[in-house]
Amino acid sequence: MMIPFPYLLYLGAPKDELSVKTSRGVAVWRPELCLGEYRSPGSAITLGLPQLSFAEAAAAGARTMIVGVANAGGTLSEAMVADVLAALEAGLNVASGLHQRLGANPAIAAAAAARNLQLFDVREPPAHLDVGNGRARAGNRLLTVGTDCSVGKMYSTLALERELRARGIAADFRATGQTGIFIAQGGVPIDAVVADFISGAAEWISPARTDGGWDLIEGQGSLFHPSFAGVSLGLLHGAQPNALLLCHESGRQHMRGLAGRALPGLKQCLDANLQAARLTSPDVVAVGVALNTSALPRAEAEAACRAVEDELGLPCQDPVAMGVDRIADRLIETFAETAD
Amino acid sequence: MMIPFPYLLYLGAPKDELSVKTSRGVAVWRPELCLGEYRSPGSAITLGLPQLSFAEAAAAGARTMIVGVANAGGTLSEAMVADVLAALEAGLNVASGLHQRLGANPAIAAAAAARNLQLFDVREPPAHLDVGNGRARAGNRLLTVGTDCSVGKMYSTLALERELRARGIAADFRATGQTGIFIAQGGVPIDAVVADFISGAAEWISPARTDGGWDLIEGQGSLFHPSFAGVSLGLLHGAQPNALLLCHESGRQHMRGLAGRALPGLKQCLDANLQAARLTSPDVVAVGVALNTSALPRAEAEAACRAVEDELGLPCQDPVAMGVDRIADRLIETFAETAD
Repeated sequence: MMIPFPYLLYLGAPKDELSVKTSRGVAVWRPELCLGEYRSPGSAITLGLPQLSFAEAAAAGARTMIVGVANAGGTLSEAMVADVLAALEAGLNVASGLHQRLGANPAIAAAAAARNLQLFDVREPPAHLDVGNGRARAGNRLLTVGTDCSVGKMYSTLALERELRARGIAADFRATGQTGIFIAQGGVPIDAVVADFISGAAEWISPARTDGGWDLIEGQGSLFHPSFAGVSLGLLHGAQPNALLLCHESGRQHMRGLAGRALPGLKQCLDANLQAARLTSPDVVAVGVALNTSALPRAEAEAACRAVEDELGLPCQDPVAMGVDRIADRLIETFAETAD
Repeated sequence: MMIPFPYLLYLGAPKDELSVKTSRGVAVWRPELCLGEYRSPGSAITLGLPQLSFAEAAAAGARTMIVGVANAGGTLSEAMVADVLAALEAGLNVASGLHQRLGANPAIAAAAAARNLQLFDVREPPAHLDVGNGRARAGNRLLTVGTDCSVGKMYSTLALERELRARGIAADFRATGQTGIFIAQGGVPIDAVVADFISGAAEWISPARTDGGWDLIEGQGSLFHPSFAGVSLGLLHGAQPNALLLCHESGRQHMRGLAGRALPGLKQCLDANLQAARLTSPDVVAVGVALNTSALPRAEAEAACRAVEDELGLPCQDPVAMGVDRIADRLIETFAETAD
């Protein structure tokens, strides 16, 4: 799977910023993939990209319309079906992260087939996955792990990719969730694979590499989230990471979706991840902590990072507010030493 | 799902003992469910049950034919399709553990629908699963955990069920694999659920219970198997076990399917399981070790059990050769104390 670009980002009739979060992620991290946006007449929310009709987008060279819309239930409304059909009519492939599959809608499937266009349901895992084998493979791999879901793992991974690339180091984001898959033009929705294939899926998205570059693998969930820890562990084993980057949100009151359940301590969480990772990557090391401090004033944010550094002996930065330069420094230093 | 009994066990034309392993498991653990067996003319392998044609089985009161056959690829051969159709014609429901689904065969689906009979594809997980929530629930639950796959977790769980029931204690085997599901007449094939639902599936098969009895949950895989540890961890969190029974096979040379990968030590394995289990069951304790000593002479088997007992301070028995009475004693003693 390689989603053809340039993209037209479909916003529909967004109700709020949250409903265009996926599209905004693509626009922020891959502006070079994005030609424009489509929103229904009368909508005020914009990504700041050129407004294009389906025909205008196709004429300008767009290859794929990205339905990066989040709604309750992940359903395709009648209005969205009509828009998808119109986009196909204009000659665009269509990719969707909705739970309800494009390919399961007979009209959409027929329209795509008639025009020889591709439909990408990025929540549908690939059919050819093998079970993981845990065999040591070549290459440098970093995985982001978290104290909880939604603490900034995708953002941190992409920020590190940008930082390493800016320094001339080959680095590739490997996607495990829907927004990430649009950004990377491919990947595996790791929480949607059949349980037996979790680690195999992680092995598949980060195969052996020998160019000295890094695969930066988007983490999911948390070993300490009782709903999803199995996904996180399978991903950890399959990723076979040389390096871990721990992600956390300052001030998070409880595990996502589970009122009353406390988050683990940072050291506890990191130790558990390192211990589990050693099964397939005996020399794994932590290289930093990405702290989402958006809830804190700047002075407190910096103090929070210093406190983490003192506790763990690792560079700690908020990727949004402070970048990830010191985390990248540590990564490079650590693996320059081991390469000697 | 509740597979109607009595069963007719379908053996087909078995090539060896391994190919009837599933049917034999049902015959051994639930003789009261099994009315007879069907094998193709000329086959020598038998479970020792009455040989019945489909019509004879139906006339004798059989409700469901169990296709408990293991073959490479898990496919339905033409001969098997013909036999399934003949069984439906005779009025039997059909349950299968093959990878290839009964319901996906148009002739079988049509024949079942025409006669208002049920098809059970036990490798197909239920559609209504929720994600796990990790909330504390009432009841006594024991989970078998292992150093590896195929070390005797199902057998040990069933042996403990038999032992507790013989002592008048309510105890119910909860199945997570295909053979177990035929035995329990229901359950969830935990390795076949979508990754996000592993712990939710485990919660679903062992709901809150308040009768003082035990849910004895069939474990799968191993936290130390790099192919399947995600399944094992999700099951561990969802099972929310009060008690763990560690299973191991003496003399196993390497992790199943992974030549060169050593098994974990028993203490290392038990500690990792206890630590992970505490996320949803803070007071979890180990109550014993089930050691598969089939590769050892009896004297060595007993010495191996004593060595484990000395190391871990837990009763250790081979459930096949020695029973599980001392493990049951420990379980009862431990929870009699906590009930006081």
